[in-house]
Amino acid sequence: MVISKSGETTETKAAFIVVEAWLKKSVGKNYGRQVVAITDPVSGSLRKKVNQAQVKDRRSFRSLPLLKGVGGRFSEFNMGLLHLAIMGVDVQAVLDGAAAMAKRCIPDDLALNPALMYASLHTILYKNKGKPIAVMMPFSETLKSTADWYCQLLAESLGKKYARKIEIKVGGIEEWLNDSSHIVNVGRTPVASRGTNDLHSIQQNNIEGENDKVITFIRVEKFAADIKISGKKADILSGKKFSGLLNLAQEATEWALVRQSRPNCTIILPEVNPFYWGGLLFFFEMATAFEGELLDINAFDQPGVEGYKNYIYYKLCKPGLAKEIADEIRNNPLVKHSRYII
Amino acid sequence: MVISKSGETTETKAAFIVVEAWLKKSVGKNYGRQVVAITDPVSGSLRKKVNQAQVKDRRSFRSLPLLKGVGGRFSEFNMGLLHLAIMGVDVQAVLDGAAAMAKRCIPDDLALNPALMYASLHTILYKNKGKPIAVMMPFSETLKSTADWYCQLLAESLGKKYARKIEIKVGGIEEWLNDSSHIVNVGRTPVASRGTNDLHSIQQNNIEGENDKVITFIRVEKFAADIKISGKKADILSGKKFSGLLNLAQEATEWALVRQSRPNCTIILPEVNPFYWGGLLFFFEMATAFEGELLDINAFDQPGVEGYKNYIYYKLCKPGLAKEIADEIRNNPLVKHSRYII
Repeated sequence: MVISKSGETTETKAAFIVVEAWLKKSVGKNYGRQVVAITDPVSGSLRKKVNQAQVKDRRSFRSLPLLKGVGGRFSEFNMGLLHLAIMGVDVQAVLDGAAAMAKRCIPDDLALNPALMYASLHTILYKNKGKPIAVMMPFSETLKSTADWYCQLLAESLGKKYARKIEIKVGGIEEWLNDSSHIVNVGRTPVASRGTNDLHSIQQNNIEGENDKVITFIRVEKFAADIKISGKKADILSGKKFSGLLNLAQEATEWALVRQSRPNCTIILPEVNPFYWGGLLFFFEMATAFEGELLDINAFDQPGVEGYKNYIYYKLCKPGLAKEIADEIRNNPLVKHSRYII
Repeated sequence: MVISKSGETTETKAAFIVVEAWLKKSVGKNYGRQVVAITDPVSGSLRKKVNQAQVKDRRSFRSLPLLKGVGGRFSEFNMGLLHLAIMGVDVQAVLDGAAAMAKRCIPDDLALNPALMYASLHTILYKNKGKPIAVMMPFSETLKSTADWYCQLLAESLGKKYARKIEIKVGGIEEWLNDSSHIVNVGRTPVASRGTNDLHSIQQNNIEGENDKVITFIRVEKFAADIKISGKKADILSGKKFSGLLNLAQEATEWALVRQSRPNCTIILPEVNPFYWGGLLFFFEMATAFEGELLDINAFDQPGVEGYKNYIYYKLCKPGLAKEIADEIRNNPLVKHSRYII
């Protein structure tokens, strides 16, 4: 499965060249049937490759379209679905969960709209109470990668240099532009964590360090697998379940934070299943979109990553790089003064 | 292998009860030979278990002592060594690397002491330039866990509520106390990251979001495994190695950060081998110890984790919990007002 909108993402392209050569060697000329390309429906070098392959050989790449204007972090319900299906996850249930959550995120009334409430409180805590750090802490190994995904969602969506400028075009179509005359440099910084693992690492800092964080716990009520602890009855752990200890540790952490006036909130999943997981992801996507509105930035682009990409393209002598970009890099080479060799 | 200083760490104890029952069932009465306990050399419930087992049966638990006063985050060169040996790592080379680095971290002259330089610059950037966030970003999958370890090292060592108070006891012995009349709430917040993975997630925020971070890159010059990219000569990636692309991406990220006046530094490992890895860990340990000195806090304790532990012990009805702690928890129950059910 090869996923790239343009087909030019360096890591994806490099890895695919290598894997494609391996496949050709092992599978032979029909190797294309082993490949699914998820890419722009019309343009880009990967789509071109898909089209060429289909002309040459009917047994070639299968492909799916990447929805236009949907960044990677918002594409769980688009390009992410094939992965889930292959893993045996009930894709319809994921979408049902997302759709059910979507309905709950419509009301204007703050008290009835959980994502708007989450966004509003976090924005107040960020801008008015000095909390620019967001710690995402599920008490569930299963949700470890979900916390990593949230970090990307928050960092790429809200970490922005310019305020947004909306221009109304002919026919009433909105065009979102970055207002280069209005530098804001906003965005909360996410930190992925997990319980109870990180109670033994970063919790000391969360409780006693700078009071500049808001912690979001994710608590699971019912676990798919559980273990009951045997042992002598006199022991305090005897007869307890791992799930119970995990949730007790979550509650204890919540209590310890409140005791030190450290803001936190807890999201409860009845269980980790496709329906609730779809709802959880959609909740965070809506909350992040609302945060973007409150900060008056465009939550759906990522212009800041162009800098390093241009430098890579320049060094690789990629054709077609704009002259002013090439000039800037040539005139401002990297000065390696902050480097230290171990 | 069961590691706990006191033997009372909830997760370790719970897991060991379960594993011990499994072992007994599978291996029989000599199961003790399968267990290595690393614990306090004299006291604690795990040491007691080791001693009892040895009296009952000569084929019982093997054990190693945990050095007194060395917290988990500083114990790679103590309790961590057995893991390394089992994994086939050359332990002597790790210690040699650490010892070589130790010598380089002795000079008073800032320019000759890399750990002191690292600590000084980061403390200035933190306290005088508003950079309370530390992003640790190796460009190497092998060093992913090392970045996680650094997060624990920084967060537990420097995230402190009270300033340090040193009292000189009889015989000139220093006793380090926490000065409860002097609340500081200091400590940089660590964020683990890795290249190039996180160029596609948090980099947008590092480059355009709040300018409140210092990024430390770890760059590896020579990789143990590498792949050369085949493909048509016209393609810019053709003939390039993965290692070269990875290091180009690191350099590009460095360049992009400097361009936006975002402070960063780069540590270069000639290669990831036991010697340099030992040196790297010791470097960070010394730098963190120096940071503790500069912030005037005790970098070697972790009093902040007692809160949640006490709550857990209270709920589990552990005998011997101090009355004032039990009273506080009873009188200040957790109010679950910041919870939301998906």
